[in-house]
Amino acid sequence: MSPTGVEGRGRMRRMSDGVEAALHCALALAALPEGKVLPGKSLAELHGVSESYLLKHLRALTAAGVIDALPGPRGGYRLSRDPGRITLLEIVEAIDGRDPAFACRELRQRIPGGACHSGGPDCFIKTRMLAAEEVWRAALRAQTLADLVEDGERQIDDRNKKAIADFLEAQVR
Amino acid sequence: MSPTGVEGRGRMRRMSDGVEAALHCALALAALPEGKVLPGKSLAELHGVSESYLLKHLRALTAAGVIDALPGPRGGYRLSRDPGRITLLEIVEAIDGRDPAFACRELRQRIPGGACHSGGPDCFIKTRMLAAEEVWRAALRAQTLADLVEDGERQIDDRNKKAIADFLEAQVR
Repeated sequence: MSPTGVEGRGRMRRMSDGVEAALHCALALAALPEGKVLPGKSLAELHGVSESYLLKHLRALTAAGVIDALPGPRGGYRLSRDPGRITLLEIVEAIDGRDPAFACRELRQRIPGGACHSGGPDCFIKTRMLAAEEVWRAALRAQTLADLVEDGERQIDDRNKKAIADFLEAQVR
Repeated sequence: MSPTGVEGRGRMRRMSDGVEAALHCALALAALPEGKVLPGKSLAELHGVSESYLLKHLRALTAAGVIDALPGPRGGYRLSRDPGRITLLEIVEAIDGRDPAFACRELRQRIPGGACHSGGPDCFIKTRMLAAEEVWRAALRAQTLADLVEDGERQIDDRNKKAIADFLEAQVR
């Protein structure tokens, strides 16, 4: 930490790559037959990633209530509810949290004259930056996992659809 | 790098704290009289941050054409154009770049059945995530530095306004 306390923090406005993995996993789970589950190992194999990597994100999705984790040797993961009731924002926030992207260190309080309207509401710079993020959040809140399911039905080619279906049929519990 | 090549990359969707500093600096420069400049040292002092920290961000703003850097002992920084023609998005992108926040590692290409429609356009997951970001960008593009100037006129209290004006008057070149 530098003397002024504002240097050296996160550089990039960049989501966790876990968001992509979580969206893919949720989409795969949306394809399971009613009442069935898929092991974490299978989800990892399906997406070509390590199980240890994926487990962290599956735990986050479980903690957020997006998916259910059924324990035991016949256990695995399933969606907690209908895909049409799981928003993309819920999946993103399950992995990345709800902290604002805009990093505000209250620089306004350092400005000469003392705390610039600091007893009041947020700095007007922060207010505008957070409002812009809210528009992004609203866009993700307006889309659900069912939209991705529809995209997949339209866009995934037949050969790939069959390969995914075969994989799921062999691994589902 | 892990064997699967997707682990261990950037975790947080979080902007650089330089964005806040850049917005504050641009706002300060908007208060300068026509044709005047303010040294980087003064901008650093005004915001209570170190000059070396701020210089990096002032260089980025200069490279992006948001501000001009006048060299020499009487040099300093000024806005490159009218505040009403500098969007908040330009300032954000000057610091954080234009890379998408959504981290896509093309997991779709690892899915059984071979590359999932990978010869075609973006994955539909990526398409929806980038579209949501575009809404955020549009919100920042619709606001300019002139909006922040107006906010400041309305919201900064008189004592603070005077302290800032006195500081700028003493340091301006």
